[in-house]
Amino acid sequence: MATMLSVKRRLDRRLNLFEESLESLVHDAMSSSEAPAMVLARDVLLAGGKRLRPLLCILSYEAAGGEDVSEVMDLALSSELLHTATLVHDDIYDQSKFRRGRPTLHSSHGLSHAIIAGDYLFSLGFARGGRYDLEVVDMISSACANIATGELLQFDHIGDLSTTPEDYYSIIDGKTVGPFSTSCACAALVAGASQDIADMLYEFGTEFGRAFQLVDDLLDLTGDPSMGKPRGTDVHEGKMTLPLIHALTTLHGAEREHLADVLSNFSDDRWNELHSLLEISDSMEYVKQLIQNHVDRALEILDSLPDSPARELMSEVALVSKKRRI
Amino acid sequence: MATMLSVKRRLDRRLNLFEESLESLVHDAMSSSEAPAMVLARDVLLAGGKRLRPLLCILSYEAAGGEDVSEVMDLALSSELLHTATLVHDDIYDQSKFRRGRPTLHSSHGLSHAIIAGDYLFSLGFARGGRYDLEVVDMISSACANIATGELLQFDHIGDLSTTPEDYYSIIDGKTVGPFSTSCACAALVAGASQDIADMLYEFGTEFGRAFQLVDDLLDLTGDPSMGKPRGTDVHEGKMTLPLIHALTTLHGAEREHLADVLSNFSDDRWNELHSLLEISDSMEYVKQLIQNHVDRALEILDSLPDSPARELMSEVALVSKKRRI
Repeated sequence: MATMLSVKRRLDRRLNLFEESLESLVHDAMSSSEAPAMVLARDVLLAGGKRLRPLLCILSYEAAGGEDVSEVMDLALSSELLHTATLVHDDIYDQSKFRRGRPTLHSSHGLSHAIIAGDYLFSLGFARGGRYDLEVVDMISSACANIATGELLQFDHIGDLSTTPEDYYSIIDGKTVGPFSTSCACAALVAGASQDIADMLYEFGTEFGRAFQLVDDLLDLTGDPSMGKPRGTDVHEGKMTLPLIHALTTLHGAEREHLADVLSNFSDDRWNELHSLLEISDSMEYVKQLIQNHVDRALEILDSLPDSPARELMSEVALVSKKRRI
Repeated sequence: MATMLSVKRRLDRRLNLFEESLESLVHDAMSSSEAPAMVLARDVLLAGGKRLRPLLCILSYEAAGGEDVSEVMDLALSSELLHTATLVHDDIYDQSKFRRGRPTLHSSHGLSHAIIAGDYLFSLGFARGGRYDLEVVDMISSACANIATGELLQFDHIGDLSTTPEDYYSIIDGKTVGPFSTSCACAALVAGASQDIADMLYEFGTEFGRAFQLVDDLLDLTGDPSMGKPRGTDVHEGKMTLPLIHALTTLHGAEREHLADVLSNFSDDRWNELHSLLEISDSMEYVKQLIQNHVDRALEILDSLPDSPARELMSEVALVSKKRRI
């Protein structure tokens, strides 16, 4: 118990450092000619969010031997700014009404302002990332290009019941996983670590990111009313998450046809049908097992890093993220 | 005559170098995992456009003493990629159907794909700009942040008949002028020129960019059917261009009321009314004079640079841009 408290305290210390830097960035922009753009962007920037990318960025830097956290803060800011930029734009075409407990930018300020605010966040993110060496800059912009590719691929597979697990991993590796891997690996490079260490942290980020996305897939199917997490957004949008892909592959005959019908003509009154079918195919358990595998591999990678307090914290983050409910 | 031909040939040589680099960038992306995003982006990238930003970038580099054009090519690419990114996003909320003679991305591929393609172009643009020193990176991202601010300011003044010339310059300095000034100044820094030379080229870009935007304002009012340039887009959208702002300031009494009515309730059958009023206020002539002043100042700035073939070419570009019809 004391240990868990101490873990939380030590994570909070890093998160607070990050929040201070973010608030100071927002404050500076508000006192500059950029104020009209920051007025729009600050609500979503400061509304919280899990801050997992900057947290892992800071921890990776320390685990890779970095000793002055201020060195990696621009990278941490860059990861959160670019992530928020993509959220603002995603919310537009996903027609999401709420984000981080507040109305989305496009629903409160309209399409044009949301597009512009997202572009502004991109320029801030690149400004912070652009302070590092060419290798880091290339990795960051390549991760952003791959987000675009992953999103386009996802559109291609909307409602596509023949989507394979390989398609699925191509989509999430671009959209979600790449930014985690890139943050962790770049943080190691900023710490002056060897390419080997950077590669290991890249792999850690990959395993972590995949577990993270699979947890998201499960949460979309279970929801959690007590946490204000709605369920079924992906199903309604026709997004092919791994539990659905697994069920479509596993079921046969009448059950497969039933599932295809439920997914192609989904509405909220068909939840029970969907859950019965996922029960038969054991798809939720299958995905839980995959999450466990990804987390196990993430922990194994950490084990091969030199021992450090940051490494222990990264293990905790990996373990806790498996159980998150939002 | 021989001289003009030779000017054109020398400009074309630089433009061809740029097009080759751009084509090679597109080609590389098409053979990478980014292909799905580049498939969307390449049409608008390769559809032409005036390429004024990269051209001035290359010429500024040479005029500032740069001797190896390949050094500045990433900056030239960056300026065109970022410019194209903003065009793709602008076209969405301006609801433009055509760009560079082709259907706009959102009209051919839908909202989501156009947002994503713009984001992808941003990441490519920042990747190229991010190869330079911190000072250059900061100037580029600051120019992008100011584009966002300029666009938001422009929205605030849509249909606002009390828009002042100061408001107007704040809008265009962010949206249009900043990227020109920034390209020219950064090119000087890349050439290793002194801060003085970089500042002068920044001023050149500012004067050039303002003249460029004012010519745009006039073209919107006159159009040129022979060049396929439609007229009145700004007027229909309620954008307060300088000829309109001047006329609203100059006219009084019944004429001012008439103009306010025409602008607030504009339709294509009111062109004659609008042109008569602009005739009375002499606003087109006033703006032509301003354009002349900006070009004169741009030329004066060039005169204080060391003599060079590139400097002569920049004068020609400034003079020719005054007479452009698209």
